[in-house]
Amino acid sequence: MKVTTPIHINSKRLHDRIYKLSQIGKIGETGVCRLALSKEDRAGVELVKSWMEEAWMTTRIDPFGNLIGVLEGRDPDAPVLMLGSHVDSQPYGGRYDGVIGVLGAIEAVQTMVEAGYEPEMNIEVVAFCDEEGCRFNKGLFGVRGMTGKLEEGELERTDKNGMTRREALLEFGCDPAGFDGYTFEEGRIGAFLELHIEQGPVLEAKGEPIGIVSGISGPLWWTVEMTGFAGHAGSVPMPMRQDALVGCAKVIVALNELARQEPDAPTVGTVGSLTVFPDSRNIIPERVSFTVDLRDIDLERRNGLEEQLRMLIDDACLEHGLSYTIREDTNSEPRFCADWLKDVLRHEAAGMGLTPPELMSGPFHDSLTMSYVCDYSMIFVRCKEGISHNPKEYAAPEDIQLGTELLYRAARKISERKGG
Amino acid sequence: MKVTTPIHINSKRLHDRIYKLSQIGKIGETGVCRLALSKEDRAGVELVKSWMEEAWMTTRIDPFGNLIGVLEGRDPDAPVLMLGSHVDSQPYGGRYDGVIGVLGAIEAVQTMVEAGYEPEMNIEVVAFCDEEGCRFNKGLFGVRGMTGKLEEGELERTDKNGMTRREALLEFGCDPAGFDGYTFEEGRIGAFLELHIEQGPVLEAKGEPIGIVSGISGPLWWTVEMTGFAGHAGSVPMPMRQDALVGCAKVIVALNELARQEPDAPTVGTVGSLTVFPDSRNIIPERVSFTVDLRDIDLERRNGLEEQLRMLIDDACLEHGLSYTIREDTNSEPRFCADWLKDVLRHEAAGMGLTPPELMSGPFHDSLTMSYVCDYSMIFVRCKEGISHNPKEYAAPEDIQLGTELLYRAARKISERKGG
Repeated sequence: MKVTTPIHINSKRLHDRIYKLSQIGKIGETGVCRLALSKEDRAGVELVKSWMEEAWMTTRIDPFGNLIGVLEGRDPDAPVLMLGSHVDSQPYGGRYDGVIGVLGAIEAVQTMVEAGYEPEMNIEVVAFCDEEGCRFNKGLFGVRGMTGKLEEGELERTDKNGMTRREALLEFGCDPAGFDGYTFEEGRIGAFLELHIEQGPVLEAKGEPIGIVSGISGPLWWTVEMTGFAGHAGSVPMPMRQDALVGCAKVIVALNELARQEPDAPTVGTVGSLTVFPDSRNIIPERVSFTVDLRDIDLERRNGLEEQLRMLIDDACLEHGLSYTIREDTNSEPRFCADWLKDVLRHEAAGMGLTPPELMSGPFHDSLTMSYVCDYSMIFVRCKEGISHNPKEYAAPEDIQLGTELLYRAARKISERKGG
Repeated sequence: MKVTTPIHINSKRLHDRIYKLSQIGKIGETGVCRLALSKEDRAGVELVKSWMEEAWMTTRIDPFGNLIGVLEGRDPDAPVLMLGSHVDSQPYGGRYDGVIGVLGAIEAVQTMVEAGYEPEMNIEVVAFCDEEGCRFNKGLFGVRGMTGKLEEGELERTDKNGMTRREALLEFGCDPAGFDGYTFEEGRIGAFLELHIEQGPVLEAKGEPIGIVSGISGPLWWTVEMTGFAGHAGSVPMPMRQDALVGCAKVIVALNELARQEPDAPTVGTVGSLTVFPDSRNIIPERVSFTVDLRDIDLERRNGLEEQLRMLIDDACLEHGLSYTIREDTNSEPRFCADWLKDVLRHEAAGMGLTPPELMSGPFHDSLTMSYVCDYSMIFVRCKEGISHNPKEYAAPEDIQLGTELLYRAARKISERKGG
């Protein structure tokens, strides 16, 4: 990858910061554990806050635990351009997930100020609180709080030590009393841009350092339970069996084939978790419980596949004498990136000599929630072998540099527009 | 089922004894827990011993924990006719497994004596020690001990509380010092007959109270591990996946089809246990470990199926980019019942107005070990829904009566023969 145009951002400063932040909650050589609202998370947020201030932003932490830095524009009343991601991590995570979106945004703003550039509207850089959701088993907390989308009982959710989110927020220095009467001001945000590692292998396979996201495909999540009848593996003749695992295996194979039906479609289908009862080598499985994860950026196609899958489950159960239940755990719709933002990204990338491919995001991000209150777009940075949520997570400095440079150029372009 | 010939055995006495024994180690209404060499096992053995003595047998407990009752014949030096099974149980077992083979044999002998019948050779009734093997994770202990087939280190195997088998034997009242110098006297046993519940659904499906066993199909037991590559379920495109669970599912389906290849063959194939790693709903399975259980009374056919299965595993792994290992845990050969004993059983059953079907035994029994030292045969009694190793295990009194009557008649017939 030869990039001929000059890089404006300060890549050394950016990577110094990525490294420094990775030392907080460090595990092993390259891993990070900064669970949301933990002491490590707070220490990370404080460090990031100091860098926002170095970038001439005024900062605050809102009641939801979001860290917000503001660079004032010429028209402080115009809809803001928001940039950002999160700095909390998985319990056994890496140093790039979320982090490059926050530190990249700070770098973009700092570069603008150092260049003497003044945006039309305010630019806000946000490190959203608890995107990961592993501590209280429900993520996107900060961004949902900021946009008025919290649900009943969220403050009473507990972590594995029995601490509630309310207690954790108070310990973090936020007062949930501030939630009362909070309403999100519709139209306050003009656009949201998020830089993130891909967390998948597509860009690496294409040999591309960065990509432009077409949208976030919400998953359909099921838990399927199939029930047959146990029996001695040596004594029940094949035609008399009601083997729940054989029925389940047919569904696993069928889902895999369904997801490949259209070779050019980005559909993905996965059975990731499976439990057999009684799970003994010489007893025919009586009951199998397994998860289904089906995603597609095209909701109509996904709905069609869902219908086919329901029929296949019904067929497999009929064939093997099983009863079944399907519990729908999550059913999210795909959320598309705004065309005008993708156009800006493509145009600015072209100016850098790049033609980034467009790709779907399977994982969700803070952008998913933002999509309900404003136009949004995402830049993906290639990551090694698609590994994420693991200390082995890695993105090359030169790729992060290109992603951040594109974020800078796009943010500058967007913030030149009067009226957002 | 109308049986017109008279029943010689004392069915009431037999069922009283089955009931009384079921009260030792009773769990719930119908369950039994008499783990090998436990206090409950010892109490059960003592009770059974008293019934042997009621049946005019002399009794002893050998160093391996086997309870042996002897009815002396006219020629005490002739090869003995041995009858029996076991009275130890699974931890969550029923009251019939093993028990009817021991109490039925005592009933057969007592009926002979009461009829003034004297056998040609000695008849020995044995309650073998620790057939189930659940406590020390290795079964058929007593029968292997008696026939000189123990392996190195068996006395050092521990139960889940850390007690060794040596300690448990001593506590039971047996001295493993007695093992030293013990050798099985070849030819001492002329024949072995075992009455047992079927532990499968074949007789019930055929509407037959009892069956004659053709042989015990030894299982081929494997542990297969397939390894692919984990990744986010939302971000790795289908063609780039190395999903170990999809490969495994294809093998489960293929094994099921292989075992049904010859519709009239008694082949059975089962995947009973399966573990997925990392077992998370939104992560592509990296590694799957599962068991294979393949049985057939025809070893050549089983070997052919094994070869096909190996190729199918190889194909599935090639297709999905997986590596794999196959660990062979057990590879037992089928052991056939003696034709002459089956002839006796068929003939005596015909005298009772019965034409019992012949069927394979998938589960193993004390007979499996006996098959290496003498001719053997088994009578199966219909059991409800094929359920065994469970408190729900049930065999109807009238079916047990028929099985025991057949055992009595066959044992009497065999023991009339001079020279065994």
